[in-house]
Amino acid sequence: MQHFASDNYAGICPEALAALLAANAGHVRSYGDDQWTLRAADRLREVFETECDVYFVFNGTAANSLALAALCQSYHSVICHQLAHVETDECGAPEFFSNGAKLLALAGEEGKLTPAVIEEAVTRRSDIHYPKPKVVTLTQASEVGTVYRPDELRAITTTARELGLRVHMDGARFANAVASLGVAPAELTWRAGVDVLCFGGTKMGLPIGEAVVFFDRRLAEDFAYRCKQAGQLASKMRYLSAPWLGILENDSWLRHAAHANAMARQLASGLAKIAGLQTLFPVDANGVFVHLPRVVEQGLRERGWLFYTFIGAGGARLMCGWDTAPETVDRFLDDVRALSALPASS
Amino acid sequence: MQHFASDNYAGICPEALAALLAANAGHVRSYGDDQWTLRAADRLREVFETECDVYFVFNGTAANSLALAALCQSYHSVICHQLAHVETDECGAPEFFSNGAKLLALAGEEGKLTPAVIEEAVTRRSDIHYPKPKVVTLTQASEVGTVYRPDELRAITTTARELGLRVHMDGARFANAVASLGVAPAELTWRAGVDVLCFGGTKMGLPIGEAVVFFDRRLAEDFAYRCKQAGQLASKMRYLSAPWLGILENDSWLRHAAHANAMARQLASGLAKIAGLQTLFPVDANGVFVHLPRVVEQGLRERGWLFYTFIGAGGARLMCGWDTAPETVDRFLDDVRALSALPASS
Amino acid sequence: MQHFASDNYAGICPEALAALLAANAGHVRSYGDDQWTLRAADRLREVFETECDVYFVFNGTAANSLALAALCQSYHSVICHQLAHVETDECGAPEFFSNGAKLLALAGEEGKLTPAVIEEAVTRRSDIHYPKPKVVTLTQASEVGTVYRPDELRAITTTARELGLRVHMDGARFANAVASLGVAPAELTWRAGVDVLCFGGTKMGLPIGEAVVFFDRRLAEDFAYRCKQAGQLASKMRYLSAPWLGILENDSWLRHAAHANAMARQLASGLAKIAGLQTLFPVDANGVFVHLPRVVEQGLRERGWLFYTFIGAGGARLMCGWDTAPETVDRFLDDVRALSALPASS
Amino acid sequence: MQHFASDNYAGICPEALAALLAANAGHVRSYGDDQWTLRAADRLREVFETECDVYFVFNGTAANSLALAALCQSYHSVICHQLAHVETDECGAPEFFSNGAKLLALAGEEGKLTPAVIEEAVTRRSDIHYPKPKVVTLTQASEVGTVYRPDELRAITTTARELGLRVHMDGARFANAVASLGVAPAELTWRAGVDVLCFGGTKMGLPIGEAVVFFDRRLAEDFAYRCKQAGQLASKMRYLSAPWLGILENDSWLRHAAHANAMARQLASGLAKIAGLQTLFPVDANGVFVHLPRVVEQGLRERGWLFYTFIGAGGARLMCGWDTAPETVDRFLDDVRALSALPASS
Repeated sequence: MQHFASDNYAGICPEALAALLAANAGHVRSYGDDQWTLRAADRLREVFETECDVYFVFNGTAANSLALAALCQSYHSVICHQLAHVETDECGAPEFFSNGAKLLALAGEEGKLTPAVIEEAVTRRSDIHYPKPKVVTLTQASEVGTVYRPDELRAITTTARELGLRVHMDGARFANAVASLGVAPAELTWRAGVDVLCFGGTKMGLPIGEAVVFFDRRLAEDFAYRCKQAGQLASKMRYLSAPWLGILENDSWLRHAAHANAMARQLASGLAKIAGLQTLFPVDANGVFVHLPRVVEQGLRERGWLFYTFIGAGGARLMCGWDTAPETVDRFLDDVRALSALPASS
Repeated sequence: MQHFASDNYAGICPEALAALLAANAGHVRSYGDDQWTLRAADRLREVFETECDVYFVFNGTAANSLALAALCQSYHSVICHQLAHVETDECGAPEFFSNGAKLLALAGEEGKLTPAVIEEAVTRRSDIHYPKPKVVTLTQASEVGTVYRPDELRAITTTARELGLRVHMDGARFANAVASLGVAPAELTWRAGVDVLCFGGTKMGLPIGEAVVFFDRRLAEDFAYRCKQAGQLASKMRYLSAPWLGILENDSWLRHAAHANAMARQLASGLAKIAGLQTLFPVDANGVFVHLPRVVEQGLRERGWLFYTFIGAGGARLMCGWDTAPETVDRFLDDVRALSALPASS
Repeated sequence: MQHFASDNYAGICPEALAALLAANAGHVRSYGDDQWTLRAADRLREVFETECDVYFVFNGTAANSLALAALCQSYHSVICHQLAHVETDECGAPEFFSNGAKLLALAGEEGKLTPAVIEEAVTRRSDIHYPKPKVVTLTQASEVGTVYRPDELRAITTTARELGLRVHMDGARFANAVASLGVAPAELTWRAGVDVLCFGGTKMGLPIGEAVVFFDRRLAEDFAYRCKQAGQLASKMRYLSAPWLGILENDSWLRHAAHANAMARQLASGLAKIAGLQTLFPVDANGVFVHLPRVVEQGLRERGWLFYTFIGAGGARLMCGWDTAPETVDRFLDDVRALSALPASS
Repeated sequence: MQHFASDNYAGICPEALAALLAANAGHVRSYGDDQWTLRAADRLREVFETECDVYFVFNGTAANSLALAALCQSYHSVICHQLAHVETDECGAPEFFSNGAKLLALAGEEGKLTPAVIEEAVTRRSDIHYPKPKVVTLTQASEVGTVYRPDELRAITTTARELGLRVHMDGARFANAVASLGVAPAELTWRAGVDVLCFGGTKMGLPIGEAVVFFDRRLAEDFAYRCKQAGQLASKMRYLSAPWLGILENDSWLRHAAHANAMARQLASGLAKIAGLQTLFPVDANGVFVHLPRVVEQGLRERGWLFYTFIGAGGARLMCGWDTAPETVDRFLDDVRALSALPASS
């Protein structure tokens, strides 16, 4: 049975699996000194149309934390949205990897930061008793399923530059953002002023692994050592990198992301039509956030559906993945319809 | 072409691959709350015949560092052999994860520590200007391919207890040690006084991943949080855990390890027979260490063989893996024979 | 000229200075193994009427951070008031010393936490993606010059115990709280359920130094090593400890604190009488917080008065110290009166 | 009674005390924004004849650790002599402050490093499995009482530059080295290629405190934040800085250091003359290292003399301070003479 709990409930997509199996032949040099890894990094450089530095690590928490640690020192602070994964769901990993950098969690409409809130946070204090802001991190697509448009990004990164901040992008669902906006990956990253992207692989259909992509390559100095020391250098690297080759071929990654986005829109539209339920945020990517009537929510759980209550904003969080079947959406909507028709009880 | 550079040059063994593919069906709860992970942990408890706590992490550097950090504080020290991987090949990871614990690297014959050298290191100083020893870490099989026998382990752990030390075992090649000694895994771990084992999966034929096994379960308090914060909690955990199920079934792990050990013995015996080359250490497990005549070493490299010079002891390090073919050993020995027959040059 | 900027603008009080000079004779063993330090620690045990463990460190940031690090691990969190010094003015020191523990900054009336807000924060989440709450820290007197009464403390520590939290007290102005409440120091600490107190010396008239006092002595295990490693072990310890002897004799510390509190009350009462200015918080200790009319504030600064705007609550923060002269208060009030009489301008 | 245990057994020298008392008047801005601190920093710039950046911190462990942390990242390594204080007597502080940087402790005659041993250590490995060397730290005067001459320093720093290393100097006894060599402080620091000096104040007669002096000012970027976060920013900074003014006036610091050096020479010469005891190292500075016959050593301790056995080299370590009286040396020598005359027993 499929669920809407998380896009990480899905397995390995066929393209990634085929590439993993193809890589499983014979002896291969370890620690990334292999053809699969070199080719995957090259392929990412083509995708981003620039000579970026690429590192494959095990998961998103590590990718974000390592990248942030590379952008600041322990006595600096990192500006993030208050709903950002780095703040709410990484168990203090950014603080751990950076040895104490503080996250300054800010409010912002639709899960997004703006130049104004960033500027206010940076200029509020300038004494040495508070960690000096050095980085701003943006989540693309955001934690509430919205996306930053290129002009929004540029406005933020311009402000960031003026304030002496570097720009990190948590792209656990970067693919969904690219698919949603229909622009080149470069337009959402380095051309928009992003220094480092943590490009999520797992939620796109990889078994394990994310790519840390440095557009400002000076920031990647000795980053391989950082990964090694932090337990993020795979000995059999081919199993992290080869799957990337699989999904980057023929734009499979974008096709899968577009499908997940479409399923989210279908779900949102069904909820609106059937039960008059309006989403809490625009459905730009693959997540739908909605306040379900209590009887509906309980009923869905009783029928076995798994999904999370979104602590940050209240309401149910319904995520679609690369493998979400239209029939799953229909079946869920059928259950919502049936439950909505029930007489309300306390 | 196969090599003797490292047992991590090998791919995924068939049993692990079959299990990984079997796990790749449908939606599964993330972060380890899935049947594959529960079953793999249960299976490990059976293997060790005790109610141990099991955590699956991405690699050996992380496994060792997380376990050591759980056994001490930053102002403590960790006693290890001077050839131990934690000292020589983890880029300061134990220091990083523990926030500064110092490794006290000691000498010891055949890559092994003894009660005497441990006691000397612990009792040498007791002032607060030097980190207080709190852990001893043993590598089983050792970095030079030797193994600790149960009685050697018990002697060490008895001394460790008396000195207030906890006992960690780096078992990147634990399977090779078990296969070599032909004793129950419990005899080499908790029954011998080991508190925590980092059980290596990668070198046994898994694509990625190690298991941290706490025999003293009190030491595992909140360890899941530690893993999460350190970027070592896989969202699609099934791809770390299911392969363990594959290799633990029908003792595949032991069969593979025994094969690797046998290949190492065949290699050592051939080197002795053909070229009169004696190994530097007993070949207890899957590694052969030998001083090759310069012309032989150069010739082997020119013929495409990959292997490392062992910094710690000099000489060539030749590692066999689960997939090392007898033909590979024969071909290597043929090349050694041919090169040894050449007239020596400067 | 005296100011109201901070109680750390004051110098060394006569009793502390006399003790420091007395200690400056001849050779003395270093690192705390001296009579001055032993006696100061003993004297503190008398003051607290219990066998507590005492450590002298250099400043309050270090005292708080070391104590908090001793109470939790990096993947834990520390509950504090959102105005707490550890959150707002220590530049990420608690995160640095603990290697990443997160501060959960909560709101609370009059700068104080309550059992209810603590419970809500602890029970809101229990998943491993968020640092597990392990400590609650209370500031006594608080950052806004209020104090926790013994019954308030007991209510909080009872809740804390039930929730598995340890209790830390930031006592940078502990003396002012004791003087304000007129109860035994024990009533505000261990008898009220406090595990560790950071007892501020600097603001009481010492040149440098704070005392970390462990009432739960098990929590002090190896704490001397922690201090040493963190650069907080003075070699000439007598200059940190002897001044404590000076101020603890004949209750000088309490007399000084009572004086500072009295000056604050005189200041508050004058502001109310002269200019109708009401304080933002009860004046329990030595701080007065008040919204000054803009013309008054500007005028005071032009006349050379130094004081801070309190970021947390707006308004001016006026601190009195052990040496604040009644004449200083009068002169300040005279200036306020004069400035208040001026016609308001833009 | 005076001792030879450590130069930190001595108290505050008269010049430092006078300055401290002079600074103890009225209200002064805190955290270093005061005239005493500004003047002390200016005075140090005069002493070093360059526009260096100066920070006053509490002790030598912190000074060294903060400076080293500013010169490298956690995945780097620091080359030091195996007898260096940072390796042997700081309880893992450099590892703690840097979040895991590894010390590479090297051998070297007379407690000194050479270009050759540094080069060997740096070039031995270049893989990412071992922390990349980034800093070399030199102790001047060394732990065994020897000094680096300007040409020795330049040879080392030239090699360091070529190898991409920055140069840190642990100058806990820098004054003794300057007095010994009779050259300008600049000749032993920036003109010799030193990037950062930790200038020891405590052993020169200050109550508390060291100065971190950055000659390469780019390396001091945001260093004030680093100090603050690490609990090394004094609120009443004047008590750290004013004593520096006292000892820097009229070259008191050099006079005191020269005196300590002279006492050491007198001690060494007496030991040679009276008992034929040769020092283990040249007596360049204020320390004398000598193997005392067992009966002599025991006898001295029984007569109440305090001194340490030097773990690194064996033998007794006898340190002279700014206040060591010639009579103390004479009395010690008298005791050695008397004890040497005794018939040897088991």
